[in-house]
Amino acid sequence: MDNISEYWVGFDLGGTKMLSATFDDDFNLLSREKKRTKAIDGTKSVLDRIVENIEKSIEKADLSKSTLKGLGIGVPGTIDLESGVVIEAPNLGWENINLKKILEDRFECPVVLCNDVDAGMYGEYTAGAARGSYCSVGIFPGTGVGGGCVWDGKLIQGRRRTAMEVGHIQLYSGGQMDGAENIGTLETISSRLAIAAASAQAVFRGAAPHLKEEAGTDISNIRSGTLATAIKKGDQSIEKIVKNAVEYIGTMVVTLVHLFSPDRVVIGGGLAEAMPEIFVKETKRIADSKVLVSFRDTFDVVEAELGDDAAIIGAASWAKQSINS
Amino acid sequence: MDNISEYWVGFDLGGTKMLSATFDDDFNLLSREKKRTKAIDGTKSVLDRIVENIEKSIEKADLSKSTLKGLGIGVPGTIDLESGVVIEAPNLGWENINLKKILEDRFECPVVLCNDVDAGMYGEYTAGAARGSYCSVGIFPGTGVGGGCVWDGKLIQGRRRTAMEVGHIQLYSGGQMDGAENIGTLETISSRLAIAAASAQAVFRGAAPHLKEEAGTDISNIRSGTLATAIKKGDQSIEKIVKNAVEYIGTMVVTLVHLFSPDRVVIGGGLAEAMPEIFVKETKRIADSKVLVSFRDTFDVVEAELGDDAAIIGAASWAKQSINS
Repeated sequence: MDNISEYWVGFDLGGTKMLSATFDDDFNLLSREKKRTKAIDGTKSVLDRIVENIEKSIEKADLSKSTLKGLGIGVPGTIDLESGVVIEAPNLGWENINLKKILEDRFECPVVLCNDVDAGMYGEYTAGAARGSYCSVGIFPGTGVGGGCVWDGKLIQGRRRTAMEVGHIQLYSGGQMDGAENIGTLETISSRLAIAAASAQAVFRGAAPHLKEEAGTDISNIRSGTLATAIKKGDQSIEKIVKNAVEYIGTMVVTLVHLFSPDRVVIGGGLAEAMPEIFVKETKRIADSKVLVSFRDTFDVVEAELGDDAAIIGAASWAKQSINS
Repeated sequence: MDNISEYWVGFDLGGTKMLSATFDDDFNLLSREKKRTKAIDGTKSVLDRIVENIEKSIEKADLSKSTLKGLGIGVPGTIDLESGVVIEAPNLGWENINLKKILEDRFECPVVLCNDVDAGMYGEYTAGAARGSYCSVGIFPGTGVGGGCVWDGKLIQGRRRTAMEVGHIQLYSGGQMDGAENIGTLETISSRLAIAAASAQAVFRGAAPHLKEEAGTDISNIRSGTLATAIKKGDQSIEKIVKNAVEYIGTMVVTLVHLFSPDRVVIGGGLAEAMPEIFVKETKRIADSKVLVSFRDTFDVVEAELGDDAAIIGAASWAKQSINS
């Protein structure tokens, strides 16, 4: 592509698959390449696959490495932002991997790591539901519950650690312990895992005939789409479980409004994609009814727009923002 | 002062007293002037007193109005940041006062309004306990519980509203309603008012002989210093009430660490000044024990340094930051 003078790579490293894409300076997509992560083959193998995946996306767009301005990488784990070391990425079995250095040596350009949810949030800011906002906060209920905040064009991060761990915010005292030893946090009620666990009990008790038919009592089979289908077919017990979970997402939105005064709240993730009517509209209703009077009508609650593409666009555009500022 | 080419005014508008000060461009104090607010005399009178107070602080430093670069005003209420209108300031009985316009017309320089707690927090960033931090969050338990955050040199505020309403964050479900119809928020347990109300019950039940002697059961008489004295003299019931309140400040710190990943947490306000051993050290202990492993050792908990001067320095330096950016 002779007319592309410079370009950016955005990369989304997932536990199951990885995604690499190239973008021009305005973040128009030039190419896109998917690969399985195969974490089970070990760190060295995954690192090789990352390099291959990025190289293939560059080749596919017929670009040269010499005009690559920067690489943005979304990582599902804890990052030391000062050194670019991935301290821990449980889904990959990684500990203390200096990913920034490895990729900078290989691609000879600046590399910016960020948390994968932050990458998605920044993507929504660059080209999706948070575009044009002064401050946007996002909540993404999936297997866990992720969060992000873009404030005045920048991701809210600490000096050393990424931030916005909304899933781990304490919302009430007491309650059942989840599988990660958490009590009273948003994730213990509103994650797909927590909702699936409650729903499996409803199936076991005979209160959810449609979900029983679709998935049984194995929580691994109770996905976001399965829950949506069961509710559509008439499993009222499942609808109540989901709506109870959304109450707490609404409460979390209230906390974020009181702390950040965002003009926009973005709700995304697998559950919200499968059930936007409940996850977006109910959240808005609950948040509106609970915020302090002075914050009423200062924020919208909207659905995320970019799905799987959010993190690649966001990783690339955050790399540009970080490198140029 | 012939050698001062330009200067800033910082102003702290309180329900009882107002404070105006002039600063050189490096925020060295040039003059300082105090006046009673006398809110009972009505809005027009208070506005006149504000102008008089500012003019007197300028005269006192022998400065000319022509070299005044900007005015920063800390306001105890809800502000529309876009228009500079004070929407509501309950302690002053104000509603919809266009304070920015009134002062800009009078002093012919840019005027920047901010929340009074934000002004104090920014003062700690400019010249106190938050100096040099990348991200600092502050909690200030007083009559209520205020909060603030300076991130990358800027106050965290929304486009239209100030933010960081930590006193109104939900920390648990259920509990006693406070006098402002709140349930389960930080302020319902950890404000001076909440602690005084619990302590008055201990006095009534005969469990706090020293506090009984100092203050009786009237919560208006149970000030931060009174509580500190009673604890020092041996009222264990009061110490337990205060320590229980500090548990929740610690929990709030954990929430803020998980959302902002600050490198510093500042604890200030009347209660912390009277009992730093409990409010700072205990908060640190609780926060350290409850944060996610990945945030351990990423933040300090420190005592605010500037007391009453924090808001005047902060209002002035935030005005400079806002006007110059």
